Amino acid sequence: MSYLPRLAVTMGDPAGVGPELCLRLLAEPPIARECSPVIFGDAGILQRVARATGLPCNSPVISAADWPDRWQAIEAPAVLDLAAIDAASVTPGRVDAATGRAAFTYVDRAIDAALAGQVVAVTTAPISKEALHAAGHRYPGHTEIFASRTKAARSCMMQYSDEITCSFVTTHVGYREVPALLTAQRILEVIELTAEALVKLRGRPPRLAVCGLNPHAGEHGLFGEGEEERIIIPAIEAARRMGLVIEGPLPADTAFLPARRQTTDAFICMYHDQGHIPVKALAFDSAVNTTLGLSIVRTSVDHGTASDIAWQGIANPGSLLAAVRLALRLAPT
Amino acid sequence: MSYLPRLAVTMGDPAGVGPELCLRLLAEPPIARECSPVIFGDAGILQRVARATGLPCNSPVISAADWPDRWQAIEAPAVLDLAAIDAASVTPGRVDAATGRAAFTYVDRAIDAALAGQVVAVTTAPISKEALHAAGHRYPGHTEIFASRTKAARSCMMQYSDEITCSFVTTHVGYREVPALLTAQRILEVIELTAEALVKLRGRPPRLAVCGLNPHAGEHGLFGEGEEERIIIPAIEAARRMGLVIEGPLPADTAFLPARRQTTDAFICMYHDQGHIPVKALAFDSAVNTTLGLSIVRTSVDHGTASDIAWQGIANPGSLLAAVRLALRLAPT
Repeated sequence: MSYLPRLAVTMGDPAGVGPELCLRLLAEPPIARECSPVIFGDAGILQRVARATGLPCNSPVISAADWPDRWQAIEAPAVLDLAAIDAASVTPGRVDAATGRAAFTYVDRAIDAALAGQVVAVTTAPISKEALHAAGHRYPGHTEIFASRTKAARSCMMQYSDEITCSFVTTHVGYREVPALLTAQRILEVIELTAEALVKLRGRPPRLAVCGLNPHAGEHGLFGEGEEERIIIPAIEAARRMGLVIEGPLPADTAFLPARRQTTDAFICMYHDQGHIPVKALAFDSAVNTTLGLSIVRTSVDHGTASDIAWQGIANPGSLLAAVRLALRLAPT
Repeated sequence: MSYLPRLAVTMGDPAGVGPELCLRLLAEPPIARECSPVIFGDAGILQRVARATGLPCNSPVISAADWPDRWQAIEAPAVLDLAAIDAASVTPGRVDAATGRAAFTYVDRAIDAALAGQVVAVTTAPISKEALHAAGHRYPGHTEIFASRTKAARSCMMQYSDEITCSFVTTHVGYREVPALLTAQRILEVIELTAEALVKLRGRPPRLAVCGLNPHAGEHGLFGEGEEERIIIPAIEAARRMGLVIEGPLPADTAFLPARRQTTDAFICMYHDQGHIPVKALAFDSAVNTTLGLSIVRTSVDHGTASDIAWQGIANPGSLLAAVRLALRLAPT
């Protein structure tokens, strides 16, 4: 008897759109043919959200106590009830220390399951950074939780979509902090992690492009302090010596034009908004966030908790479905 | 007898795509019904490019010596031959000190004509900053030449298109220099200049939005050094006290999503790539660059000299035609 791959999907902040996206995922027949998603969350929350939205909620529920004996036999979409929060205490859209604590628990247990080989990958629904911080977990986001828990020596964020894919040398830091974080070694690391992932996704050597830091990629030293010549070009040259096909440094404003996108599998971006602006403008509903370089595969929706529309059943599940599918493609086979 | 408005169009770098774009403009019947464009350039170059590309070149040519007596009688597309370069010496695609010197002359004389009220506006074809610098004119671009020559007390760049319009608090400076240039006064100045232009273009009070500097617009102080709270929010509040309809600071990555674009007439951007990335990704062939705050109206193509395809007749004139039309809309009536 052959089982479908099991995938952990964290429920995200209980007060956000995560629970309803998970309900939609559980009821999605094409997903159930590809894998057995297991929601790491609270069954009580899912039941309340199902009542509020009219979405079905009839997948088998496994308690945390039963998990060690039952995980291996899972062969259909299921819910792991971590009972991390009192469902009756949650107000839709109101994230706080209690919802942040619960959201962290789902992620923490999903990482345990992935490290133990019980699931092939983890896909995460959105959490609230403010709630996370209120609960005492001082991480800027999922990426850093996964990097820390899996003791990753190197990692980076990649946003993947059919339209455009970007990897990031820096992410959740202030504008002013970026230049000091750029080193040829770090840029080369992100190039290598991106190339590895794209080989897996494309089945061939990828074509990469690196963006400059300054307007017009510095325009031969006219703008900036030579970051392109001192830091970015040496990283590109080192990557070429490794046999990678890679262009740059490109002016960021013309890097993402249609013709260039068609011939580029992934862009290496120096800072958060350099890549997030084009990804969100061009692929808002379909982009998936993934953390490269971890010992486990992790993908995520590319949007926030959307507290203003939480528990209404109108949140678009496109990014979560795409995130699950990307996780399956990246998972070890 | 009523004349159509006269508009100066500078030919741009002689070795770039400017000359062929001007030939296409001169041969564009709808433009000739709206205005009388006068190319400020070199007739010898236009003739060589016409031969190379097969484009027509039969507009009347006026010499610099005849201009004072003839400008007032212009009632159809024409060429002002400034004889700034030896046409035979120019190699397509090869910009140098001589082409930079000529390109500067076209701009300089067009500004004279606008200041003298001989033309209602100036539209500029692309110049090469490197050629300009080689010729000893140390300007980062057109914007700064116009600001300096017209002694503008305040000015800013705006990129206009039907899809998206962005104004810029800073433009051609290195990444690291941006934070020190952000002040509430400068941001308010750009908001006011943008509002004035949009009132003229829309015929009603515009809806504006201001982007933050840091990822997620700082996320309530989580990223950055409080630039949003200290500098950007005070500028927005001052603009509201003036009665303007204005949102922000918005996270730059979600600012340009389709729903937000539909309800926003213009975005105020903190730095070059923050606005140039979405404008070029969404409106590459139709965006127009304009300098606000000058005593004369100035618009420009939103692309460079494209030296790799110069004199081949394949450059897309869409941005130049759009720039001419925007100049006519912004011109004093």
